Amino acid sequence: MPVPIVIDCDPGHDDALAIMLAAADPAVDLLAITTVAGNQTLEKTTLNARRVCGIAGITDVPVAAGCARPLLQPPGVAADVHGASGLDGPRFAEPTVDVVPEHAVDLLHRILRDHPEPVTLVPTAPLTNIALLLTRHPESAARIREIVLMGGSTDRGNRTPAAEFNIHADPEAADIVFGSGVPVTMCGLNVTHQALATPDVLARFTGLGTELGDVCAELLAFYGSAYHRLWGMPHPPLHDPVAVARVIDPDLVRCVDANVAVELHGRYTRGATVVDLHGYLDRPVNARVAVALDAARFWDRMVDAVRTLGARGR
Amino acid sequence: MPVPIVIDCDPGHDDALAIMLAAADPAVDLLAITTVAGNQTLEKTTLNARRVCGIAGITDVPVAAGCARPLLQPPGVAADVHGASGLDGPRFAEPTVDVVPEHAVDLLHRILRDHPEPVTLVPTAPLTNIALLLTRHPESAARIREIVLMGGSTDRGNRTPAAEFNIHADPEAADIVFGSGVPVTMCGLNVTHQALATPDVLARFTGLGTELGDVCAELLAFYGSAYHRLWGMPHPPLHDPVAVARVIDPDLVRCVDANVAVELHGRYTRGATVVDLHGYLDRPVNARVAVALDAARFWDRMVDAVRTLGARGR
Amino acid sequence: MPVPIVIDCDPGHDDALAIMLAAADPAVDLLAITTVAGNQTLEKTTLNARRVCGIAGITDVPVAAGCARPLLQPPGVAADVHGASGLDGPRFAEPTVDVVPEHAVDLLHRILRDHPEPVTLVPTAPLTNIALLLTRHPESAARIREIVLMGGSTDRGNRTPAAEFNIHADPEAADIVFGSGVPVTMCGLNVTHQALATPDVLARFTGLGTELGDVCAELLAFYGSAYHRLWGMPHPPLHDPVAVARVIDPDLVRCVDANVAVELHGRYTRGATVVDLHGYLDRPVNARVAVALDAARFWDRMVDAVRTLGARGR
Amino acid sequence: MPVPIVIDCDPGHDDALAIMLAAADPAVDLLAITTVAGNQTLEKTTLNARRVCGIAGITDVPVAAGCARPLLQPPGVAADVHGASGLDGPRFAEPTVDVVPEHAVDLLHRILRDHPEPVTLVPTAPLTNIALLLTRHPESAARIREIVLMGGSTDRGNRTPAAEFNIHADPEAADIVFGSGVPVTMCGLNVTHQALATPDVLARFTGLGTELGDVCAELLAFYGSAYHRLWGMPHPPLHDPVAVARVIDPDLVRCVDANVAVELHGRYTRGATVVDLHGYLDRPVNARVAVALDAARFWDRMVDAVRTLGARGR
Repeated sequence: MPVPIVIDCDPGHDDALAIMLAAADPAVDLLAITTVAGNQTLEKTTLNARRVCGIAGITDVPVAAGCARPLLQPPGVAADVHGASGLDGPRFAEPTVDVVPEHAVDLLHRILRDHPEPVTLVPTAPLTNIALLLTRHPESAARIREIVLMGGSTDRGNRTPAAEFNIHADPEAADIVFGSGVPVTMCGLNVTHQALATPDVLARFTGLGTELGDVCAELLAFYGSAYHRLWGMPHPPLHDPVAVARVIDPDLVRCVDANVAVELHGRYTRGATVVDLHGYLDRPVNARVAVALDAARFWDRMVDAVRTLGARGR
Repeated sequence: MPVPIVIDCDPGHDDALAIMLAAADPAVDLLAITTVAGNQTLEKTTLNARRVCGIAGITDVPVAAGCARPLLQPPGVAADVHGASGLDGPRFAEPTVDVVPEHAVDLLHRILRDHPEPVTLVPTAPLTNIALLLTRHPESAARIREIVLMGGSTDRGNRTPAAEFNIHADPEAADIVFGSGVPVTMCGLNVTHQALATPDVLARFTGLGTELGDVCAELLAFYGSAYHRLWGMPHPPLHDPVAVARVIDPDLVRCVDANVAVELHGRYTRGATVVDLHGYLDRPVNARVAVALDAARFWDRMVDAVRTLGARGR
Repeated sequence: MPVPIVIDCDPGHDDALAIMLAAADPAVDLLAITTVAGNQTLEKTTLNARRVCGIAGITDVPVAAGCARPLLQPPGVAADVHGASGLDGPRFAEPTVDVVPEHAVDLLHRILRDHPEPVTLVPTAPLTNIALLLTRHPESAARIREIVLMGGSTDRGNRTPAAEFNIHADPEAADIVFGSGVPVTMCGLNVTHQALATPDVLARFTGLGTELGDVCAELLAFYGSAYHRLWGMPHPPLHDPVAVARVIDPDLVRCVDANVAVELHGRYTRGATVVDLHGYLDRPVNARVAVALDAARFWDRMVDAVRTLGARGR
Repeated sequence: MPVPIVIDCDPGHDDALAIMLAAADPAVDLLAITTVAGNQTLEKTTLNARRVCGIAGITDVPVAAGCARPLLQPPGVAADVHGASGLDGPRFAEPTVDVVPEHAVDLLHRILRDHPEPVTLVPTAPLTNIALLLTRHPESAARIREIVLMGGSTDRGNRTPAAEFNIHADPEAADIVFGSGVPVTMCGLNVTHQALATPDVLARFTGLGTELGDVCAELLAFYGSAYHRLWGMPHPPLHDPVAVARVIDPDLVRCVDANVAVELHGRYTRGATVVDLHGYLDRPVNARVAVALDAARFWDRMVDAVRTLGARGR
């Protein structure tokens, strides 16, 4: 019985592969894709979600646009990592998939209300939409099975020394989510940096012999060059699909229970996820924190998904 | 031509009189009353709004309930000031006015969208509903003529040494409102403390010879005893109607332009409105700040409103 | 029996008159003058202390220079109020009084250790020297009778909307002083704004018919023009002598007990003195806070001091 | 030509071995040992410094006591790690080495002033003494060759999730040191966790066949059991001697240049060292940050030192 999920994303190269994994893997049932400003503006991330659906042949999943800016702070983007379009690299035709005329928060609320069983939310973006859902429709919380998010870190950040991009982009939203009482699983940089897109991985995508496989390789090539340029990393970490992988097979991503506090007030640390692995702060556990990835099986699953979609696309 | 307004409130003794003023004064057209948690829980403030409508014969104004808690921080109430019911003092019959089955934010959004002209919002409570409206329906901002709020202070607070109750109860919401770009007028403690409900004022209400006049006097008597007990003040300041009065007749409440920043990060000052009357911080003007009240004319208007409603009630 | 005091200052127009009051009034015994960076650089404030001693004939009081910058933050000055020299207005001859070759903190420590009775410290400047004394020589605390300081405010500031200059100039030093356990009396803006140097006051100084009286009037004229230019105030408040006046005659300055917390962490409120007059924060009393000045008697005492010194100078 | 150094410490098990390394290694000339409150009270850390000198035969190095508490915050100790004495494990005889009757800050100031060449300071404790030296004697800064400190971390802390003990114990002092302009080398947890006292290491100490070797092994055994109990670590990291090792042979500890900011204001991150390895914050380089230890050569040097002292002690 597949787990019903909604991906809330800001594509984004790694979001693109997260969408594909979620759409193709038989262990999950992708009910919707919602978008939010993050890696790029809402307009661009929504266009990119449609492009991904188009190229991957995902035609039966509604796409809805949500918040165009964070709750409090001014918006920002990650054009240095994802390019001016937010999904630089491949060329995309005009997408054939449209957005539904419904705000992401309304769609989320409706799905949660109407789905026969609790639904897992998989945010791979700033948590603005999810925080707004919980604020505007607090009764939805009881219908969320789990929030499995990509964001944060147990150690260093990637937007500041202390803060990861998704949390740093809307710390108040993250605070609302971690404080909501909904079960939260955090897949942070510490674990997503174990999902490195090596040349071997790229070769597996091109080796599929499909257009989609080639697009994935092109996405990862662009993304990898950005990581090399910005951080001197030989291979880029593929953050977002790790959260999907955790839902698909919890054994792929080992977690520990901990309190996670979002630092809102620091001068140099705003947006840090303070993960209390040793109970220093004597605060209650409010999250499962991912600490290890079975990278080999993760990539198998990811390549399988692209194979499935690519075959379907023919 | 009366100014169309919506009151967003958490009755509360002074909210009660603000509602009466807004409902009766010919200079404004009260389109709706929305409620939020603040002086008491949402359940109680909503019941109290209905009670006020019932006792004051306000039967044609929809009442809608909004947020039951602040955006980020845990909820709190002001039972020390307003009693266990939030409107202690008089005895109220079961209210005959019902709430509409619509969230306050939806009602606000709908009114703003559909009203032929821009509407003035008059929040006399924590700004949670208004912040949520601006976050969920950013297009609404252009349909708000002005936000004239009771909250904050140019100097000292009344919930902490630095922070006034409404802002302290949801500082992040206040930050969203003051940063929204919508014209904001702030009627803070510095000016509402000029609206003192002296024995003369109480005598004017009882002198009306109506049940409503007596209820108002009872409300003010309870409220005054709380102010005397808590702050040693001989007469209580009637905060919330001052914001309504500013809309009714701008000459009643003199304002100056200034930047108002909401302190979110202080250890002892969280929730303070930092009003930069002298341009120390070199930040742009984002508010009109009330600095002086014509108390005599204010009370005339307030008593007139209760007279009008009392007569209508017969 | 005069109260033994040391003035720790950063002259500064109002510091200049504070020194004169302390040197001349028979109720206090001025043991030393120590200087610190504040209104101007340490070099300038020290030169100014010597100038004041020179012009006022104060030849038997050692002057020692202390800290040239705040504990943590970068130094700043108040040239907008006090001019490029820190004591603009009159012309000063080369001062005949020298500084002692001892750091202010060492001199303070030695005086406190050796004086037969506890000594009152009267800081009218950033609290860097005093904080350093308490940190380097914690045993000195027991020898301090009281710290009666000019600084802070119960309501608004004069360097930012929330912070007064002396506290804002070194908030960590202020935190050390207020947390030291030594009895602290705070004479803040709320009370020093009751010591207005009106034309009548200036006329009393010039009416003394002494060079020193004329110098005082010139100082107040320059100072008043700055206050008029910066804040539109018709008459300038003479802050620093109020602290001396409190020591001279406690009845001149009425105080209440309260907790005073120094805000170190706010984004807009750093350096604010949060004075908990109503016990909101449930913290222990750590200060006497000045709330009212007997201005008439204050000015009598101030004019008497200048008369005494002026006569002595002949 | 040995590098002249002063160790500023709070023994503490790892401080004890840092003292021995500094006293015995021919590459450095240990001019003095100063103590401060940290792992235990000043009284205890000073007694422990004397104990170490006594047991290790260090009789020609002055020991001076400094600050008994942090600049601003209340004092705390690390009795969980170091025991009630601060140096639990071995039994110590009454120490034969005395403290000099001079405050640590005065001794530091005098050494820096009088030594023919600039001196390297090696703090392995909260930075209170060093900050006070720089505040009280700013001219000393030019006489400090370098401050090579044990403290902070490039990633996680050991007192809170974000903060290391020495920095967390006095964040304002650390801020003063990192902002002083003196060259600072930071040996943080990220590198000291590479100096693990394995059973092999303990065997090397006992294998020396000296009383001092046995004492070292006993110290490490107690210390290791604390690390095992508190953090589940099989072998304890020997933090403090790493800073000494960096001075002895810079090649033992590889460093990179970076800006290090001390977070003073966070709710959950106060005391964190925010190490900007990637230039995210666009702040100037103010430190060399240790990133790798040559552990094998480190332990050789450490064991050699204990061998030398043990032989000398016979």
